[in-house]
Amino acid sequence: MPIACSPRLEVMAVPGIPLLNAGDDLAALTVRALGATRPRIDLLDGDVVVVASKAVSRAEGRFVDLATVEATPAARALARDTAKDERFVELVLRESTGVSRAARDILVVRHRLGFVCANAGIDQSNARPDGAPQGSGPWVLLLPEAPDASAAALRRALGEATGSTLGVIVSDSFGRPFRLGSVGVAVGVAGLPSLWDKRGEVDLCGRQLEHTVTGLADQVAAAADLVAGQGAEGRAVAIVRGLTFEPGGGTAADLSRPADRDVYA
Amino acid sequence: MPIACSPRLEVMAVPGIPLLNAGDDLAALTVRALGATRPRIDLLDGDVVVVASKAVSRAEGRFVDLATVEATPAARALARDTAKDERFVELVLRESTGVSRAARDILVVRHRLGFVCANAGIDQSNARPDGAPQGSGPWVLLLPEAPDASAAALRRALGEATGSTLGVIVSDSFGRPFRLGSVGVAVGVAGLPSLWDKRGEVDLCGRQLEHTVTGLADQVAAAADLVAGQGAEGRAVAIVRGLTFEPGGGTAADLSRPADRDVYA
Repeated sequence: MPIACSPRLEVMAVPGIPLLNAGDDLAALTVRALGATRPRIDLLDGDVVVVASKAVSRAEGRFVDLATVEATPAARALARDTAKDERFVELVLRESTGVSRAARDILVVRHRLGFVCANAGIDQSNARPDGAPQGSGPWVLLLPEAPDASAAALRRALGEATGSTLGVIVSDSFGRPFRLGSVGVAVGVAGLPSLWDKRGEVDLCGRQLEHTVTGLADQVAAAADLVAGQGAEGRAVAIVRGLTFEPGGGTAADLSRPADRDVYA
Repeated sequence: MPIACSPRLEVMAVPGIPLLNAGDDLAALTVRALGATRPRIDLLDGDVVVVASKAVSRAEGRFVDLATVEATPAARALARDTAKDERFVELVLRESTGVSRAARDILVVRHRLGFVCANAGIDQSNARPDGAPQGSGPWVLLLPEAPDASAAALRRALGEATGSTLGVIVSDSFGRPFRLGSVGVAVGVAGLPSLWDKRGEVDLCGRQLEHTVTGLADQVAAAADLVAGQGAEGRAVAIVRGLTFEPGGGTAADLSRPADRDVYA
């Protein structure tokens, strides 16, 4: 069994991470913020560091000034259907491989990274870069270019700085079909399995358990969301401590249901 | 603001809850199990007790012997389409107000309680009641009759036994459109808000936050799922400590997107 349930977890926000700007070193800022915690939080082997995608995107400079975007006819038509800014819709389409649902105020797409979400995860709040020229914008913020790679780089840098073997999740907050309220999900994963597969284990009656692949990285992201809040609030980073897992393996793509296996696609 | 992000949460499984049977007193068994913990876990004001729906169902005697179920023609047809047992499908239909998607091995319905899920949440593992006559079955286990009421009763009983003002969530594990891996969700809620509404607050740039109603009770259920595992494993109860919320208010129905607002219904 690669993962054991842990009887006790701690979920800690890391205070003191500033609002990031392009080129900022998120790993260094995280290490510095941890050093200032009292009582001091040190990263330990097996800790999972959950970082808001918004913080990663800001550090990676994924800002776009909508004034620089020209909408195609397809984006203009979709903007009319959804009552959204046509330049914003143009960016959503550029970030996507297909539209899942479009209606007034609703634009759900399959992101080029494989997951299905509203607006391709493009953020319109806190999306103005530091030092943006007066009169520029409105600005929006794309998801990281390659969140699994961002997670892996952060894992490597934090591991080198602390000597600990960590998991890292780049998290976002997604709405859901059927259910109200957004929840944290993993859009980038490094150093831990994304799914926890318990199929083949037997229950107390000796019957094989079914449907027991759980969305481990998504549940960790949801737990972190309870303390981290929006990146905007200076709580861009949280630590989940106490999970038992074998290092390595997962990617966020593991969590995306392939379109041909999705009866709601 | 009714709820503040908490900078630190603890998520603790309560070991020692036995596999329950009809008529068992889940509150008393939880109090007894807590009393045996070392170091001792006492319930504190603001703790949220998350209990697996399977444990609640077993205590409420929601077992059904499929041999006693007669399938209607509609259930028989749907059983053929889904390659499922027609008596099982009959029960799913009795628990539902409509079918969302049916395909081979897939039967997603809108449960009579409002949420959309596979198989109306009916469980086929660990579903045999203690003392079932030899040769009876196969047995299945329905969701609790009224999980919000179950949560409220458990909250009252645990509150009386411990003197603490608690939240209680009855949790289940649901699959999801678009994403692989099941996650914990709240199917019963008492004593805490189900949703955390941050609309109207402003971000660091002064822009109103959008889409920031988070599924609080679902995220708490997901966090608990990380430690609680299946009820079958004797980890039917978990405690989430450190959330700040105003007592009262929520129901699981708050988390169900009404069909007329669901573009995937």
